[in-house]
Amino acid sequence: MANITKKVSWSSRADETGILGEGTPLLNGSEQLTHSRQPSEGRSVFQIGRLSTVDLEEEITSDEDSQRGRPNEIPHNEKLLSLKFESLDYDNIENQLFLEEERRMSHMNFQCLEISRWVVCGLIGFLTGLIACFIDIAVEELAGIKYQVVKKNIENFTEVGGLSISLLLWAVLNSAIVMMGAIIVAFFEPIAAGSGIPQIKCYLNGVKIPRVVRLKTLVVKVCGVICSVVGGLAVGKEGPMIHSGAVVAAGVSQGRSTSLKRDFKIFEYFRRDTEKRDFVSAGAAAGVSAAFGAPVGGVLFALEEGASFWNQMLTWRIFFASMISTFTLNIFLSVYNKNPGDLSNPGLINFGRFQIDGVAYNFYEIPLFIAMGAIGGLLGALFNILNYWLTIFRIRYVHRPCLQVMEAMLVAAVTATVSFTMIYFSNDCQPLGPEDKKEYPLQLFCADGEYNSMATAFFNTPERSVHSLFHNQPGTYNPLTLGLFTLTYFFLACWTYGLAVSAGVFIPSLLIGAAWGRLCGILLAAITTPAPLWADPGKYALIGAAAQLGGIVRMTLSLTVIMVEATGNVTYGLPIMLVLMTSKIVGDYFVEGLYDIHIKLQSIPFLHWEAPATSHWLTAREVMSSPVTCLNRIEKVGTIVDTLSNTSTNHNGFPVVVQVSGSDEPEKLCGLILRSQLIVLLKHKVFVELARSRLTHRKLQLKDFRDAYPRFPPIQSIHVSQDERECMMDLTEFMNATPYTVPQETSLPRVFKLFRALGLRHLVVVDDENRVVGLVTRKDLARYHIGKHGLEELQLAQT
Amino acid sequence: MANITKKVSWSSRADETGILGEGTPLLNGSEQLTHSRQPSEGRSVFQIGRLSTVDLEEEITSDEDSQRGRPNEIPHNEKLLSLKFESLDYDNIENQLFLEEERRMSHMNFQCLEISRWVVCGLIGFLTGLIACFIDIAVEELAGIKYQVVKKNIENFTEVGGLSISLLLWAVLNSAIVMMGAIIVAFFEPIAAGSGIPQIKCYLNGVKIPRVVRLKTLVVKVCGVICSVVGGLAVGKEGPMIHSGAVVAAGVSQGRSTSLKRDFKIFEYFRRDTEKRDFVSAGAAAGVSAAFGAPVGGVLFALEEGASFWNQMLTWRIFFASMISTFTLNIFLSVYNKNPGDLSNPGLINFGRFQIDGVAYNFYEIPLFIAMGAIGGLLGALFNILNYWLTIFRIRYVHRPCLQVMEAMLVAAVTATVSFTMIYFSNDCQPLGPEDKKEYPLQLFCADGEYNSMATAFFNTPERSVHSLFHNQPGTYNPLTLGLFTLTYFFLACWTYGLAVSAGVFIPSLLIGAAWGRLCGILLAAITTPAPLWADPGKYALIGAAAQLGGIVRMTLSLTVIMVEATGNVTYGLPIMLVLMTSKIVGDYFVEGLYDIHIKLQSIPFLHWEAPATSHWLTAREVMSSPVTCLNRIEKVGTIVDTLSNTSTNHNGFPVVVQVSGSDEPEKLCGLILRSQLIVLLKHKVFVELARSRLTHRKLQLKDFRDAYPRFPPIQSIHVSQDERECMMDLTEFMNATPYTVPQETSLPRVFKLFRALGLRHLVVVDDENRVVGLVTRKDLARYHIGKHGLEELQLAQT
Repeated sequence: MANITKKVSWSSRADETGILGEGTPLLNGSEQLTHSRQPSEGRSVFQIGRLSTVDLEEEITSDEDSQRGRPNEIPHNEKLLSLKFESLDYDNIENQLFLEEERRMSHMNFQCLEISRWVVCGLIGFLTGLIACFIDIAVEELAGIKYQVVKKNIENFTEVGGLSISLLLWAVLNSAIVMMGAIIVAFFEPIAAGSGIPQIKCYLNGVKIPRVVRLKTLVVKVCGVICSVVGGLAVGKEGPMIHSGAVVAAGVSQGRSTSLKRDFKIFEYFRRDTEKRDFVSAGAAAGVSAAFGAPVGGVLFALEEGASFWNQMLTWRIFFASMISTFTLNIFLSVYNKNPGDLSNPGLINFGRFQIDGVAYNFYEIPLFIAMGAIGGLLGALFNILNYWLTIFRIRYVHRPCLQVMEAMLVAAVTATVSFTMIYFSNDCQPLGPEDKKEYPLQLFCADGEYNSMATAFFNTPERSVHSLFHNQPGTYNPLTLGLFTLTYFFLACWTYGLAVSAGVFIPSLLIGAAWGRLCGILLAAITTPAPLWADPGKYALIGAAAQLGGIVRMTLSLTVIMVEATGNVTYGLPIMLVLMTSKIVGDYFVEGLYDIHIKLQSIPFLHWEAPATSHWLTAREVMSSPVTCLNRIEKVGTIVDTLSNTSTNHNGFPVVVQVSGSDEPEKLCGLILRSQLIVLLKHKVFVELARSRLTHRKLQLKDFRDAYPRFPPIQSIHVSQDERECMMDLTEFMNATPYTVPQETSLPRVFKLFRALGLRHLVVVDDENRVVGLVTRKDLARYHIGKHGLEELQLAQT
Repeated sequence: MANITKKVSWSSRADETGILGEGTPLLNGSEQLTHSRQPSEGRSVFQIGRLSTVDLEEEITSDEDSQRGRPNEIPHNEKLLSLKFESLDYDNIENQLFLEEERRMSHMNFQCLEISRWVVCGLIGFLTGLIACFIDIAVEELAGIKYQVVKKNIENFTEVGGLSISLLLWAVLNSAIVMMGAIIVAFFEPIAAGSGIPQIKCYLNGVKIPRVVRLKTLVVKVCGVICSVVGGLAVGKEGPMIHSGAVVAAGVSQGRSTSLKRDFKIFEYFRRDTEKRDFVSAGAAAGVSAAFGAPVGGVLFALEEGASFWNQMLTWRIFFASMISTFTLNIFLSVYNKNPGDLSNPGLINFGRFQIDGVAYNFYEIPLFIAMGAIGGLLGALFNILNYWLTIFRIRYVHRPCLQVMEAMLVAAVTATVSFTMIYFSNDCQPLGPEDKKEYPLQLFCADGEYNSMATAFFNTPERSVHSLFHNQPGTYNPLTLGLFTLTYFFLACWTYGLAVSAGVFIPSLLIGAAWGRLCGILLAAITTPAPLWADPGKYALIGAAAQLGGIVRMTLSLTVIMVEATGNVTYGLPIMLVLMTSKIVGDYFVEGLYDIHIKLQSIPFLHWEAPATSHWLTAREVMSSPVTCLNRIEKVGTIVDTLSNTSTNHNGFPVVVQVSGSDEPEKLCGLILRSQLIVLLKHKVFVELARSRLTHRKLQLKDFRDAYPRFPPIQSIHVSQDERECMMDLTEFMNATPYTVPQETSLPRVFKLFRALGLRHLVVVDDENRVVGLVTRKDLARYHIGKHGLEELQLAQT
């Protein structure tokens, strides 16, 4: 246990402390342990020292820091691992209360529970579909008004000159709309910024991200995304759907809203992390399903990102939620489109039908697809690196809400200006066919009966632009238009992602990819003149879109299925898979996926699927935190309060030990209890002495824990008098009597597998006498990763 | 530990012993334990008694039984759990050798391993696709010849009379072909009978089914399925593809064939159960993919049936294998069909394209679909019950290979006769349109330019019949034809499944369902005259097919996706899901799915996803086997040989314990070692004394274990001299030093979750002093299930 050397930094400025932390003296665990092995009479808790990752000399700083409240500048560094993120408890707390309840339940009760799970999933799907529908209609209507106004203005001024006024109008309109979206995000709920996919990934991974599944977040997210899209930013409304679905799921499954202070007294059984996570998976899947009309893709997304333990019934329920979601959206949109019963709008984005007869691919095209995948990987990596630098810049200099709003407005204005300039200087006129149902064809300087081709790409919602790139007839776009569009949109999208607005990166990626993919198709057709049938530009646009999206987000199976479902055609499965695979391999060579970059920049302790391959030389002894604060099975209240109040450690799980009375044998592990449980016990004053005196005192039930879930009060809010401090508390009934344990010699991959497969939060390390020697938590495992120079260890930071 | 009461039966006749076993005296574990806690001087192994599940009084029977070899009559009873099935080790044996090897490997080595995994998956996909292609072409060609011969004969005799000769020809031809198929299956490889899906399910679940992934099985399977389909039985060739893919995977991934005695010295790292299982999953997925052109469905099938621990990279590789498989099949079939490059034949069965414009479903049709799902569930349950009785009958009376061959021939002859009779007495003549490309239109007694409608259903391979039921124009079949066809085919298919031939049940189920589904569509159209557009009989045929298949096999998500992919149209996702859900719920009310019935009838210890809901009152103490045979860390060879030779216990895992020398403290658990490891150690004579005397003796390496995998020799084949028996063996280096353990009080669901999530084979139960008190294995967990009267416990049988 002695050989632990953990580098610790402790300040609100990561950049400086990263260097500082390395210079500070390291804590030697064994000394502390020896010291604490002498139980003091006054305190029966075995506070075997302090959290090994905390440097003692900096204790004062830490207390100051915690009193200062939320620091203005949040340190972000991908070489640090934040200690401020808590884990979720995906392991059931099997204490006596729980077991008694389970044993009381009959088979019929369990079946009722199962039915209510289905009902909840149906509700989740329905509500998620409704939200998607609301977003879609709102965007359609508002964007329609905006584009009509601008179009009329442009048409007026095309004749008489003075188009700069139109530009001004467009830019001001965009900025104003985006401003609204940015204000609600930056000032009211910063967690609603971005697509929300990284946050949901982390939640499903088991990291508790504060406020991520609250009602307020949902409202801000929905309004924010409408503003962003209507404001003409290079964003999509699909990513936020996934977050929205997750929030809906978390809300519905708990049968109450803490924000609205309403408790419907239903689904109380589901008020714990294990059940809630399952529903949030279903919500995320429903979100994907509504966004792309891809129910199977949604299920796979939820599984790929979330579930480590695959369960048949759970998956089936997730699929049900997905199906209901896409179906609801479809029904309502069909009514909105005045074509009720037509079920051809399963998602927010529809790639449209690729007619199989003309454009099935050929064997010899596969190398071309793979080459395009490599291009996608390269461009994706470039996108990610640029966005990474930009994010670092933003973290350092653009962290005030008002600055964030101004940056968003700037981007909106620039986007409008660039678009206008591109349209203005483009001389790509195309005849306006009778079958072209373009919503806002801009004639500009084109002849009558013609329209400006650049405008179809820029003067439109991104979803429509993708659709036209996929399906417009060959010859609709000239190569220069496409090249310029790719270039400008690439930088715009890169700048936009990470702004303080709700917005997704899926559609911009697809759009960039579709543009250069179509370009590839046109060039191929030009090279192999006479233009053969196989070089259909729409097909290459699809492949390019897949390559670009894969290069940026690096999702695998789920993305393939989403793309296939969105095209509604399984024939393209193989090429899309090959392309996504290539782009992932090429992109991973340079930099991680966009979501992973953002997760790392927030120093979130994210657990990957497996331990790093070369980590077999590490054992539980090396990775565990030690010494551990243990509690006795019958413990003094004062000790518990002191332990919980200790802001410098802030532990969340405490092994419970027992010593055979009178014997001098070492104390054995007999259970594990959580901070949240102790808080509830203290709040209800479950003390041995009180139980004796007040025989009528209501026994504490599981319901009391559920009512307090998930917002357990802080220890400071619980008043314990001096007399009560002398009371004793019996933890036997409430602790988890059979926590999972591993011996000290267990290798890291084995510990990791156990931890990950069972979704643990605390794993007790014991010696061969069953004595507690350490505790493995998420941050202990997330610290190790494969870097450029083999296995690397991240530093821990308190912020 | 004292309260263990396990009912044991021990005989080769399950029906009798089921009753007998209950009356036999029960073993009291605690007495045995007390007795064994006094370590005898002569034997340092703590054979703490005997396997608790074995009744001592019946010991002699058991020895006799094991000497008799394979009994002729295999007892089958779904109320028993067989002890003869071993488990697979999905938990890595992390002993010192393994850890040393892993630590020696650089990051580059791991990447090479990863690449070889991809190569193997690609090969699996390619070979599976080739096999599918071979089966398809062979069936096409041979069936073509057969039908042409019979057709010519019928046409000859239609004019002159004497059609009974045609009937005789048809019946004899069928019987002869089926006989060949039945002979190779019944005499050479009985495990190749049936679809193989139950066997693969069990393998992926972790049960070692003997000979299931051998090359010989593959050859028999492929030849057998060709004979069955060509022989005109009511079978499909899709199920066996899944088994074939699994065998291919097991073979390719090991880089050698024990049957062919060839070792290519590649992929040696993959020679253990953990890796092999992953590849077998990929093989099964590739099989599904080739069978139905459903790569995503294949992945989901593999996950639904196999993987308890979901891993992103693994899933991605499985998907790759699936894609390659369907692509290979597609390419080769396009060449065979003289249309190279046309990629519209992704699977063995193709449902054909449902044109979306005409036949999209409407909102108000959904209740109809659900009603059809209920019918499917009912009919499926009926099918399963009939097949269950039939299987029981077969187990009792038709267990000799020659009888089995004769039964198969009988079924073939009856199928031909019934088909002929149906065609003969049918007067449903339809005009032969120019677009109808029926392969073998029978005119029979119809007017010129017309053909017999019943013959399209009966006088054809089942795949073609399904296709015609889905896609023929409304009016092609009259209701009576369809009704009669459904009825006869239902009973024929039910009789056929379980014969000693390689054959799947997917296509017959689809065919039955398509027939009554089309009937529903026709009736609906008749009721709602004037026949509206929505009551398209083809659509209802599809729904009926899904309902019937779901009612029989009860698969969930994977089946939905397979159906959607086979139709090539995601629009039908929701109705298919609803139908499958309904049919599963309705069917489950009566009886289990067909595969589960067959697994239960073979008394296989199959672990479901979760422990029974009402099993919280059971703890590890009650479910574990105890007392346990433990070994010392440094153990006498004679003791080990005796332990392994003990046929009455036949244990496979032994906890290793250590006692601090000189102290009187109880011995602690320090590791776990497997029978297979001990066998290799004995074979290489890794004795302490020999190592001292022969310093040059080569150190045993992991390679020696891998070379012996998976067919470890029996202990009887290893000669240990009397001198060697006195030697000592040091197990430290070879045992798994950190086995997973649970305390005695752990509840069954918790034990189950750990066991299932990590794919364990042995889980050591310890007390709070870290002493071994019991061992939980697969059979201990599989015993409990929810029956009609709540939680039930299966009896254990030695056969």
